Amino acid sequence: MENTLIRERIASLRKEMQAENIDVYIVLTDDFHGSEYVGYYFKCREFMSGFDGSAGTLVVLADEAGLWTDGRYFIQAAAQLEGTGIDLYKSGEPGVPDIPDFLTEKLSQMSDPVIGFDGRTVSEAYATMLSRRLAKATFAKTQDLVGRVWTDRPEFPHGPAWLLDEKYAGESVASKLVKIRSAMAERGADRHLMAALDDIAWTYNMRGEDIDYNPVALAYSVITRDEAVIYMDMAALSDEDKAILAKDGVSIKPYLDVYEDVKVFDGKVMLDAGTVNTGLVAAVSDAAQVIRGGNPAKALKALKNETEQSNERLAHIKDGVAVTKLCYWLKTLANGQDEMPTEMEVAAKLEEFRQMGEDYIGQSFAPIIATGHHGAIVHYEADEKSNAVLERGNFVLMDTGGHYLQGTTDITRTLAIGDVSEKHKVHYTAVLCGNLNIGGAYFKEGITGTNIDYLARSPLWELGLDYNHGTGHGVGYLLNVHEGPNAIRLRKADVPFAPGMITSNEPGVYLEGEYGIRLENLLLCVPGEEGFLEFETLTMVPFDRDAIMADMLDEKQTFMLNLYHQQVYKTISLFLTEDERKWLEKATAPI
Amino acid sequence: MENTLIRERIASLRKEMQAENIDVYIVLTDDFHGSEYVGYYFKCREFMSGFDGSAGTLVVLADEAGLWTDGRYFIQAAAQLEGTGIDLYKSGEPGVPDIPDFLTEKLSQMSDPVIGFDGRTVSEAYATMLSRRLAKATFAKTQDLVGRVWTDRPEFPHGPAWLLDEKYAGESVASKLVKIRSAMAERGADRHLMAALDDIAWTYNMRGEDIDYNPVALAYSVITRDEAVIYMDMAALSDEDKAILAKDGVSIKPYLDVYEDVKVFDGKVMLDAGTVNTGLVAAVSDAAQVIRGGNPAKALKALKNETEQSNERLAHIKDGVAVTKLCYWLKTLANGQDEMPTEMEVAAKLEEFRQMGEDYIGQSFAPIIATGHHGAIVHYEADEKSNAVLERGNFVLMDTGGHYLQGTTDITRTLAIGDVSEKHKVHYTAVLCGNLNIGGAYFKEGITGTNIDYLARSPLWELGLDYNHGTGHGVGYLLNVHEGPNAIRLRKADVPFAPGMITSNEPGVYLEGEYGIRLENLLLCVPGEEGFLEFETLTMVPFDRDAIMADMLDEKQTFMLNLYHQQVYKTISLFLTEDERKWLEKATAPI
Repeated sequence: MENTLIRERIASLRKEMQAENIDVYIVLTDDFHGSEYVGYYFKCREFMSGFDGSAGTLVVLADEAGLWTDGRYFIQAAAQLEGTGIDLYKSGEPGVPDIPDFLTEKLSQMSDPVIGFDGRTVSEAYATMLSRRLAKATFAKTQDLVGRVWTDRPEFPHGPAWLLDEKYAGESVASKLVKIRSAMAERGADRHLMAALDDIAWTYNMRGEDIDYNPVALAYSVITRDEAVIYMDMAALSDEDKAILAKDGVSIKPYLDVYEDVKVFDGKVMLDAGTVNTGLVAAVSDAAQVIRGGNPAKALKALKNETEQSNERLAHIKDGVAVTKLCYWLKTLANGQDEMPTEMEVAAKLEEFRQMGEDYIGQSFAPIIATGHHGAIVHYEADEKSNAVLERGNFVLMDTGGHYLQGTTDITRTLAIGDVSEKHKVHYTAVLCGNLNIGGAYFKEGITGTNIDYLARSPLWELGLDYNHGTGHGVGYLLNVHEGPNAIRLRKADVPFAPGMITSNEPGVYLEGEYGIRLENLLLCVPGEEGFLEFETLTMVPFDRDAIMADMLDEKQTFMLNLYHQQVYKTISLFLTEDERKWLEKATAPI
Repeated sequence: MENTLIRERIASLRKEMQAENIDVYIVLTDDFHGSEYVGYYFKCREFMSGFDGSAGTLVVLADEAGLWTDGRYFIQAAAQLEGTGIDLYKSGEPGVPDIPDFLTEKLSQMSDPVIGFDGRTVSEAYATMLSRRLAKATFAKTQDLVGRVWTDRPEFPHGPAWLLDEKYAGESVASKLVKIRSAMAERGADRHLMAALDDIAWTYNMRGEDIDYNPVALAYSVITRDEAVIYMDMAALSDEDKAILAKDGVSIKPYLDVYEDVKVFDGKVMLDAGTVNTGLVAAVSDAAQVIRGGNPAKALKALKNETEQSNERLAHIKDGVAVTKLCYWLKTLANGQDEMPTEMEVAAKLEEFRQMGEDYIGQSFAPIIATGHHGAIVHYEADEKSNAVLERGNFVLMDTGGHYLQGTTDITRTLAIGDVSEKHKVHYTAVLCGNLNIGGAYFKEGITGTNIDYLARSPLWELGLDYNHGTGHGVGYLLNVHEGPNAIRLRKADVPFAPGMITSNEPGVYLEGEYGIRLENLLLCVPGEEGFLEFETLTMVPFDRDAIMADMLDEKQTFMLNLYHQQVYKTISLFLTEDERKWLEKATAPI
């Protein structure tokens, strides 16, 4: 069936391209800050293509269009692109060209080709890469053609912002500025231009509401040796908060002023080309020298301080109580005769349990409650149309998380609803073994996520299975649920683990049309013996004993599972009703 | 104690530096071909510093000198540099600058500094890196100052060369040239300039004797679309062999002619900047365009063909018989009352056993037979001075290998000589577990050595131990015992495993002053189920049951050890005396 809406939008965009003599127009997912998730105003790629995953790039030519996305979204994108006339390119699959290779081929058939995009939505690094690999093309970097087509575009975000008390942040703004300025001095930088919203939020102990689920405010920042400016909606912060920041030499200026202020920069300007947009870099005065690659806040933010670590433990207990209550509720329903709730009812129930927790702020991402075959869609999100009743004799996959003043959680549990087959159990147990292998890793300082990813996948590989996503990502403190630089991946997770980093551990199995299984804990990196590191599991919710084949676990895995369940019981049982406690006791009994 | 000899040589070099206005002179380990091991003529760094490890770079300034080497050689280099006035810089250790960082600091105190080296001994890639990172300096690339100091320098190598029959090589020269030319065509190259001796040997099915243990001939090669030239000692190959090569359009020209011939190159010249020396690249005509980074023979050579694979299995049986005979001999002696043999006597005995094997050509590297504390010196080589009697109650570490017409072996076994302590056994077993973990790896296509290195080290890390070298290197077919691109390392082993690759698997433990343990098998990468790969162990010699703590092995490790020992017994017992066979039966009994 033709998707007329999307076809009309693409046609309108092509008219604008023609008017501007643009042969290729690239629509990226980014806002002006390189954010992974963006406000509604910025969802140009979704508006133009209908594909609403969190990652993807649309490339429009006169007679064809293509969308590139990664393994998490292959199934979803294929469905959403149906009938749009947009071809799906599965990034990273054998034989699939990346965008520059694809365009090289296309450009070879054009004379004097022009490539356009909105320079504010393209990082300096990406723009540099494109112009290097597509030397034949001229680039038109300032054209927001989607803006012309998108007549009912949502308003530009202007939510409130607020300061996080030091008893939660664990470190003063003054102290953080000292560290950033010390890193600037090492590089000989006079100014540091920041655009990444979570780095700015961390630096100023500031939180906002400009992006769903990500508690950040739209802002740029410039730090000099003795001053610091935040460029943001002047109305977002209270006068009281402004006064607090002013004490540390931090002033607030209107959001758009940064584009003017950089025009008079001199000296050395340090910036991260991966997050500062190419439009802003282009505006920097020629009198200034740009030093690429410096963003000290990113590495500092990843190392949670002692206060953040203690707080995160508390947040995970509160979150663990909520998710455990949900598991009890679902297991009890599953053992009865009544119809099971729908996916959206489960999400609502979990939110109800989470809201019982003190200092709960909200969800850290759109909850994934996926019954049976919906679970095979890695980033499934139930809506009115897809919303299904949980299926007995199958799994429900629940990937959810919360923000608390004490930190951010991200947990996936997969539950057997009623009796499931041996195949279900074998696959569940293989995923569990991978999760336990990572959780039990003990390693030398200097080791990275690329060195340990094997542990998560090996039990699946033995069965001829695998999963098409990374094993783990860094997690912010009351900040973005995805943050760098730490990660667990087969490739390019090359920043060594260090004490204080929080990383997710989430192997999975996805059988299209059947079910999905993912088991996710957050891990805090902590020191082991001198020179060694290990993980402390923050997440506190039992795995599903009903789905475990005990004889598939080796001695160490069995020991670790029982020890973990014992810790969960000791920690969580205190906050449950008597019925819930009795259930948890059985659910955490040794295997 | 002062090392007068080395001090005098450094003083003479400084005089030459002064005469040429050179402030910094760099003496590398390379010959003119980027070889890891080099002929005596090329051992400038050893001549100048006294340090004779296989890797290291000497940097001489007017008032100081430093030698950089890696973890394999820290102990040895410290001993050999004593009294020379040359400082040891341990590459990769925290706080130790690399050479460019070290020189940046030194150059900052000089005006118009000049850095000199013999351009023929420096790869184009290294020279480019130096000039990029040391922009302040001028480079004098043609000065062989060591040659002026080294009055009794050995002759330039001019050994014989010969062609390897296709029944051993498994592929004709014509077929190899088709593949290389196809890779050239993909890059649009008119010419391919080769300098790596093993790549040239592989391409032309040629072997030589110009470097100890590495059966290669000093040669360059230029391949065009319809011709191929080998630049080498004209007298090295027989007329018959020359005629065979001529049939495939391959001609021979004098070694030094290449420096003249490149002066008239035009078109596109593809070369590997990592192995072609900067002197030769500088000589290439300006009319030609140099395409860096292409060396198709390297990747092709790593994928052993079916013939090579079958032959390697045979070579490893012959080699396994020799080493097993040695183990029996040593174990029998150890159980008696007589004095044990010396390290050099053991090496001679093993050579005697290897020479019993058909088609044995010689050792694939200098044998390491290291008793007790000598074993802690990773690349120890016994000489008349150090040669020690094997110590009872301790280990002997034996890392040796052979070349056969059927391939190259590299094996390390560590044997308990008499009773050893529980600590010995715990450490031995941890190393064994690491070896078994790698040998039993089962993984998806696309996985690299960096993804699996963890498996080898993890059992050691659990004990707070580690080893300061890579876990595995690629191995040539009747070629260099170290060859790329496959490897098992924590960092930068980023070429995926593929069927036909042979990689060593050699975790270890080194306790300075006490003992060293290393257990090394060669692994052939073979296909598993569709899309998966695994390893077939080529090496056929038992591990030492006397040193194994059976309860430290998990179920899978125990299964793998017993299965391996069963294979060793079935394969090797046929070629032993009855006494040896009886011993092997016990030595390979299930634990």
